[in-house]
Amino acid sequence: MEFPQPVSAKWIAELINAELNGDADLKASGINELHKVKTGDIVFVDHPKYYDNCLSSLASHIIINDKTVKKPEGKVLLYTAEPFEAYLKIVQHFRPFTAAAAMIDPSAVIGVNTIISPGVFIGKNVIIGDDCLIYPNTTISDYTQIGNRVVIQSGTVIGSDAFYYNTRKTEPTWYRKMQSCGQVIIEDDVEIGANCTIDRGVTDATRIGQGTKIDNLVHIGHDTEVGRNCLFAAQVGIAGATKIEDGVTLWGQVGVSKTLTIGQNATVLAQSGVPSSLKGGKTYFGYPAEEAGYKRRELVWVKRIPELWKKVFQEENK
Amino acid sequence: MEFPQPVSAKWIAELINAELNGDADLKASGINELHKVKTGDIVFVDHPKYYDNCLSSLASHIIINDKTVKKPEGKVLLYTAEPFEAYLKIVQHFRPFTAAAAMIDPSAVIGVNTIISPGVFIGKNVIIGDDCLIYPNTTISDYTQIGNRVVIQSGTVIGSDAFYYNTRKTEPTWYRKMQSCGQVIIEDDVEIGANCTIDRGVTDATRIGQGTKIDNLVHIGHDTEVGRNCLFAAQVGIAGATKIEDGVTLWGQVGVSKTLTIGQNATVLAQSGVPSSLKGGKTYFGYPAEEAGYKRRELVWVKRIPELWKKVFQEENK
Amino acid sequence: MEFPQPVSAKWIAELINAELNGDADLKASGINELHKVKTGDIVFVDHPKYYDNCLSSLASHIIINDKTVKKPEGKVLLYTAEPFEAYLKIVQHFRPFTAAAAMIDPSAVIGVNTIISPGVFIGKNVIIGDDCLIYPNTTISDYTQIGNRVVIQSGTVIGSDAFYYNTRKTEPTWYRKMQSCGQVIIEDDVEIGANCTIDRGVTDATRIGQGTKIDNLVHIGHDTEVGRNCLFAAQVGIAGATKIEDGVTLWGQVGVSKTLTIGQNATVLAQSGVPSSLKGGKTYFGYPAEEAGYKRRELVWVKRIPELWKKVFQEENK
Repeated sequence: MEFPQPVSAKWIAELINAELNGDADLKASGINELHKVKTGDIVFVDHPKYYDNCLSSLASHIIINDKTVKKPEGKVLLYTAEPFEAYLKIVQHFRPFTAAAAMIDPSAVIGVNTIISPGVFIGKNVIIGDDCLIYPNTTISDYTQIGNRVVIQSGTVIGSDAFYYNTRKTEPTWYRKMQSCGQVIIEDDVEIGANCTIDRGVTDATRIGQGTKIDNLVHIGHDTEVGRNCLFAAQVGIAGATKIEDGVTLWGQVGVSKTLTIGQNATVLAQSGVPSSLKGGKTYFGYPAEEAGYKRRELVWVKRIPELWKKVFQEENK
Repeated sequence: MEFPQPVSAKWIAELINAELNGDADLKASGINELHKVKTGDIVFVDHPKYYDNCLSSLASHIIINDKTVKKPEGKVLLYTAEPFEAYLKIVQHFRPFTAAAAMIDPSAVIGVNTIISPGVFIGKNVIIGDDCLIYPNTTISDYTQIGNRVVIQSGTVIGSDAFYYNTRKTEPTWYRKMQSCGQVIIEDDVEIGANCTIDRGVTDATRIGQGTKIDNLVHIGHDTEVGRNCLFAAQVGIAGATKIEDGVTLWGQVGVSKTLTIGQNATVLAQSGVPSSLKGGKTYFGYPAEEAGYKRRELVWVKRIPELWKKVFQEENK
Repeated sequence: MEFPQPVSAKWIAELINAELNGDADLKASGINELHKVKTGDIVFVDHPKYYDNCLSSLASHIIINDKTVKKPEGKVLLYTAEPFEAYLKIVQHFRPFTAAAAMIDPSAVIGVNTIISPGVFIGKNVIIGDDCLIYPNTTISDYTQIGNRVVIQSGTVIGSDAFYYNTRKTEPTWYRKMQSCGQVIIEDDVEIGANCTIDRGVTDATRIGQGTKIDNLVHIGHDTEVGRNCLFAAQVGIAGATKIEDGVTLWGQVGVSKTLTIGQNATVLAQSGVPSSLKGGKTYFGYPAEEAGYKRRELVWVKRIPELWKKVFQEENK
């Protein structure tokens, strides 16, 4: 998330009640998760396992719960016992949740020749391009950006919150939500079927690339980036922060795990499961998804076990 | 289902036009399915296979289609040729379906600081606690009870009817719906994603325990009881009358069959299928789901078949 | 799609700017895809692979991009460089998309005792029979026909567009939508759960047969024909142009591929995948779905590989 205008380290320290180490005037332009962080961003870290990655990241302001770490040159450290709470406070300040008063928020910008059907909800700061067709009873949440000639069918939800929790099993309620302040960006010529769900990024964007076509009941997780001209059949599910490159085809009910990459022009056959990255240009199937030719032979080998068994135990009897 | 006030055996016999055997004054306080039945309840049975279970259950009033069975002491038998029709008549009397006149029924009780977004439907006798956030275009059906700090995202349907049918293949229409008169109970701090469906209990409650978090496009069947602090990823499906104990994690697209138990703190990996009960504290995967370590070794064994084949048939050629 | 009244070959040629070969007065009564085409229909073809099938089909008018093909007797050929564009032009003429102005279109015909709940969208030329119950927040698209005693639960979308594209990988946007002009026909006594999606036919009908019951989050593709008294559990997905005969049961999360047939009274167990036709009267499971008894034995054989391995390599060591 970008702030409307940069704020000083001193200002942030006061907002989150943190101890400041570094240049009090250093400006922060936004806040992001570690894997999305840019120069000028604030990042937060509360586990020693991630200290090094955060300190050496592009972030210029690090909210951290350990005063003994060495401050990297040119950066600002903000000490607080609860960096996660500090994150929530900053998000709450810049993107406070306010109740929607109308089905279409007055702040929404809607292009020429775009049809918004009855029963459609459009949240705050949404931008929709020209010649789009938004079918009845869809939901388009705050900060969503939609290009031109985009079709979204009925019941689909764009910009639901990320399924992203901070786990503390010592407390009665184990999972505390990491508040989403990101958005969904849908490029030109994308078509999305009925009753799909596309989560917004936690701090950055979930993106659907130009010309990609998505069938019904498809789920796309937060911060996932889908390339151009992809084709996803019905009931496909893609977890968060994954990268689907251009021209990828996923057939029905395929499941894709988080933070992996599926290479350009890969095809994954129906019902397959993808637990780790796949190279482009090939066809995969099964769980875990492997090259289809190999996997098909494996199915044949399984059918040969009885023959093998017979052979081995006949051999013995001779 | 509890009746608003207890009714006598005589009153029931007249309502359903049944022959009464037993104390005409014995009060019934509600009606339930066999596996949910409590003392004071009515139960119905139309198949000899279930006679004994019903007669020896906690139910005090048994609607049955056989006059020759022995009446258990202290209970009332109600004879009728069509116990299923009698059940429907009782449900129809106490919970008649009436058309909703408004998006939010005037009988709904909504707590302090709870936000009901535009496009939300709330049925009759719904109770929602404090500090909840109900996103646009969700549907919350009659008799649903929701605790405090609950979040329900867009497009989700709470309290759809059970998928529960009486089968008679001798008639032109084989399946006759067992009318749902139960409810959904959602405890404090539960969060439910977008476009989920949670069916209500047939006669009792489907329950989601405190602090449980559910991702998008998840289905939970009628009368299923989900414990505290569970985590269900996107597109998980759980059939009816199943018990998921506290702290269970189900990853994406997992399917769980009906009337089984998944033990405390179990984890089921993505796309697995669970046809029977699983013990707590372990990680499972595959179909049918087995312990993950065992299943992973099995995948390796399958890859060794060609080697085995080569060995066996080389042996032969020597 | 039927035209409101037949049109002459000459009229069509002018509309799509095509060169006419044959009887200029020959009437066309509608337009259909090759596999749905009837006498009197227009069909279009732009790939030599399908020329013969189209020319020898029941269609009386063939829109084609090759002037050298031999005109079949009694038929009319309409030459144009872009038959796909001609198809879109004809659909656009007879079924132009116009923005919906109201949640319930005034052209909708709704039967006696049918309850339309709040938040329901009903499009143009929809016909709904008697004694139906349409739950809140459902979407029923243009030209849908619904019989008597049909129940449709919340969030379900009837008549979403077919997921059907013309592929041209030489252009920046690879996939161009084949505009749907078909419909969904739902027969008497059908019940459909919450958040389902049923696509309409591309040019003809997707049909759900009498007495069929469908659970939540089920997807049914365009032009698929479902027989009578079928039972589909939650999260089943059926691709386009498939035929499910009477009395078929599909358990949870089953996936069925396109243009195949599942025979009468077949049962497919949970999570199975069906890539090709299945004979009726049997129970199947696994991917690819095979007879359940056979598949269960296969699972046992896999578990015997370690024993086989041990035997073979012990043999060697002797």
